[in-house]
Amino acid sequence: MPKTAGELAAYVGGELVGDARANIRGVASAENAKPGDLIYIESDKLLPAALASPASAVLVGKGVFARDKTLIRVANPKLAFARAAALLLPEPPLVTDRHPTALIHPTARLEESVALGPYVVIEENARIGRHTRIGAGCVVGANCEIGEDCVLFPRVTLYRNVHLGHRVRVHSGAVIGSDGFGYVRTEAGYEKFPQRGTVVIEDDVEIGAGCTIDRGALDETRIGRGSKLDNLVHVGHNVRIGPDCVIAAQTGISGSVSIGARVMIGGQVGFGDHCRVEDDVVLGGQAGILPGKIIRRGQTVWGTPARPLDEFKKTYPYWARLPELVARLDALEQKRASK
Amino acid sequence: MPKTAGELAAYVGGELVGDARANIRGVASAENAKPGDLIYIESDKLLPAALASPASAVLVGKGVFARDKTLIRVANPKLAFARAAALLLPEPPLVTDRHPTALIHPTARLEESVALGPYVVIEENARIGRHTRIGAGCVVGANCEIGEDCVLFPRVTLYRNVHLGHRVRVHSGAVIGSDGFGYVRTEAGYEKFPQRGTVVIEDDVEIGAGCTIDRGALDETRIGRGSKLDNLVHVGHNVRIGPDCVIAAQTGISGSVSIGARVMIGGQVGFGDHCRVEDDVVLGGQAGILPGKIIRRGQTVWGTPARPLDEFKKTYPYWARLPELVARLDALEQKRASK
Amino acid sequence: MPKTAGELAAYVGGELVGDARANIRGVASAENAKPGDLIYIESDKLLPAALASPASAVLVGKGVFARDKTLIRVANPKLAFARAAALLLPEPPLVTDRHPTALIHPTARLEESVALGPYVVIEENARIGRHTRIGAGCVVGANCEIGEDCVLFPRVTLYRNVHLGHRVRVHSGAVIGSDGFGYVRTEAGYEKFPQRGTVVIEDDVEIGAGCTIDRGALDETRIGRGSKLDNLVHVGHNVRIGPDCVIAAQTGISGSVSIGARVMIGGQVGFGDHCRVEDDVVLGGQAGILPGKIIRRGQTVWGTPARPLDEFKKTYPYWARLPELVARLDALEQKRASK
Repeated sequence: MPKTAGELAAYVGGELVGDARANIRGVASAENAKPGDLIYIESDKLLPAALASPASAVLVGKGVFARDKTLIRVANPKLAFARAAALLLPEPPLVTDRHPTALIHPTARLEESVALGPYVVIEENARIGRHTRIGAGCVVGANCEIGEDCVLFPRVTLYRNVHLGHRVRVHSGAVIGSDGFGYVRTEAGYEKFPQRGTVVIEDDVEIGAGCTIDRGALDETRIGRGSKLDNLVHVGHNVRIGPDCVIAAQTGISGSVSIGARVMIGGQVGFGDHCRVEDDVVLGGQAGILPGKIIRRGQTVWGTPARPLDEFKKTYPYWARLPELVARLDALEQKRASK
Repeated sequence: MPKTAGELAAYVGGELVGDARANIRGVASAENAKPGDLIYIESDKLLPAALASPASAVLVGKGVFARDKTLIRVANPKLAFARAAALLLPEPPLVTDRHPTALIHPTARLEESVALGPYVVIEENARIGRHTRIGAGCVVGANCEIGEDCVLFPRVTLYRNVHLGHRVRVHSGAVIGSDGFGYVRTEAGYEKFPQRGTVVIEDDVEIGAGCTIDRGALDETRIGRGSKLDNLVHVGHNVRIGPDCVIAAQTGISGSVSIGARVMIGGQVGFGDHCRVEDDVVLGGQAGILPGKIIRRGQTVWGTPARPLDEFKKTYPYWARLPELVARLDALEQKRASK
Repeated sequence: MPKTAGELAAYVGGELVGDARANIRGVASAENAKPGDLIYIESDKLLPAALASPASAVLVGKGVFARDKTLIRVANPKLAFARAAALLLPEPPLVTDRHPTALIHPTARLEESVALGPYVVIEENARIGRHTRIGAGCVVGANCEIGEDCVLFPRVTLYRNVHLGHRVRVHSGAVIGSDGFGYVRTEAGYEKFPQRGTVVIEDDVEIGAGCTIDRGALDETRIGRGSKLDNLVHVGHNVRIGPDCVIAAQTGISGSVSIGARVMIGGQVGFGDHCRVEDDVVLGGQAGILPGKIIRRGQTVWGTPARPLDEFKKTYPYWARLPELVARLDALEQKRASK
């Protein structure tokens, strides 16, 4: 659905400079833009490349000026670009109807406009809200509740009793509600501790491909509103993640970990069980948090065991100097001995 | 299936103190217990909270005393709780019959009471033992052998020639029998080394969601009796894992690694190829074992490269002191020079 | 399809010593060989074990000599073994026809001899080349293009617009084309940045079980010709991987990373976004590359943050000596003070 540059400027609340009637049909990166594309720049340094591209309009920051190019000035060009892209190129619907091979248990309750791909399985007493779309091969277990406008990409598994809020997106291969990893050691080996709790995924959460989110042992595992999980993230039983967290790929969160709001977590971070991360913490990639440890509000930490990044930066340069330091120590001792 | 407190005490071999006729309908954590629930405590410190909860009975250690609460005294309250939970709330069966969309190759042999969910595929010459339940969308490759009382949750793949013992549980998304990662480098690139061995999963193993277990190249990959794998664990070709190991999430085990009995492995641990870990070793989270390395029986190791935890603890505090040490060295040298 | 030792020697370009008519029916490791098997040795040290095995022929290096055993001398015994194995025991075809439950959109175009397993879903405008085999439960999204002689093992998902070259193998559970992890932070939370690019997998790539490969945000994610990915590898949006790379299990590659040709990457390596790894680099297991970092051509690096392995080896032995160094420093200071 093409728009004019003027329509887009109005839509994103920006100021148009140039040809308001320029026809915009798509979005692109500056490197690969064609005529008809909208592009954006995040920094003035990128302006010359943007102006040299054949794009028909450029989203720029306030106060940016250029001849011979249609600009849309906004406070946050990347955000305006994301919104314009969603308007110009709405995501094609994953599925649009209920495929005849989708198996719906007679006790399940699907609201209007729920779309189901081929070979979907919806088990007893599941409830699915309006406009939710479920891709091919997904399995929705008994008693699951899924809100409105959710998207489950193909081959997602929800075990029984899992709750998803509204506008939740779950990527292909993800598993939600699997047993937590809990056993009791005996002389004869391990016996299973009950894993009979639930998982609650709040509104506007996105869950990456191949993630695994275990159900609570007795209580719940919960992922807070608006949090985003990258691919192959593991969330153990009884974990609580607050709202608006961002968790990069392959991070592993052990059982009973508690994570506050707006926490930013790099890739491959590991959390020992029962540790607690307060609001607004930033964890660098591959950091390792010891079991039971508390990371205080607003800290930025890195390394294993995780310590404040500032402290790490102070000591890190000395690692490479260790041989030199020992040589100096040797020299001092020798001088002393030779006196 | 509700029980009285007296029946439960007898079932778990405990001593009842209080109301033997108290009606127990479920289990819970102390925090979320309701009347009718059984709870447990692992430490006397938790007793006041347990007594204050509305739970109808509490599993406690020997010698614990309390007024006004029905207690069941046992040697291992957590273990007794696990067993009582399994009695009170048996896991609902994953599937109970053979769905008409389950495709069974005519040469496959299924014993009585094998249950298959929708869209299951059982390929030629597969053999499946009594009471095994296979969830929706699973694929069981040619010549696989699955024992009795196994559970495959939805969307598990067994490649051809995989063997599962009895009472094996495999969680959703797991893949067993994929090709190992073996190539021969040539000037023109990589050529595939044959990956034609098997996988043997012994009795009572549990495999977490999204795990990948490669088949042997020429021989077998084997996971020993009673071992438990958390989610997203990778097991390479020709790996041998002994009995009663516990392997936390996202651990990666390279080809031809040998792991003994009762080894405890934290999350995100990495094993280089051909390393050997003897019985009763404990590996801390994110540890990295170098290729070919041997970790001796009973050691506790941590870090990359993994070293004994005691040694790590001795040296670790010095890291933060490095700037101070250099300052002291500088001072000594200056004094010496200024003499 | 059995061969004589003489036929095999001719096939692999080797020199036969011994019984040219020895009948070879299979391949094995030296440990588990039976009569009729072909084995190989990579080092002369293994020759006695090979000679003692009941194998009917042994692939050995040039100049190796032995009595009483049929040998095939070649420049690269492992490579010759791989080729002989492929000849003797061709991989059984994953699927051989189009199962009636495979759903093919009427606009999709499948060339001759495309085989589809049960419950496969091929969406609109997908194109699939000759002799490609797609296992049970795979989903091929709209507009995907798959080349000739590819194998998709069961339960692979291709999102829309994904391109696979020829002879690509994708193992079970892998997901290609999922949304990249891109959001714009606002005061109200995170808004999704468009993830509308593509994925291009070039010829002869193999992708392990459970891998996740995200589509480009606006442009493409690309994996170069002949590169091999082990299981559970994550590839973020806009990543470019060159030809003939080898990437071990559970490695995570963040968005916009660029990796050159013939790069060898150990298991559980983590790449920060926008870093660049030049040709022929070797990265040790669990290495961590900082965002934006450049690793120069031919380097071998290890650790987090990754540094040259030689440098690491120089400083590493000092870690354990830190307590000793401090004791020596203390002693020097005390002597000085007591003067």
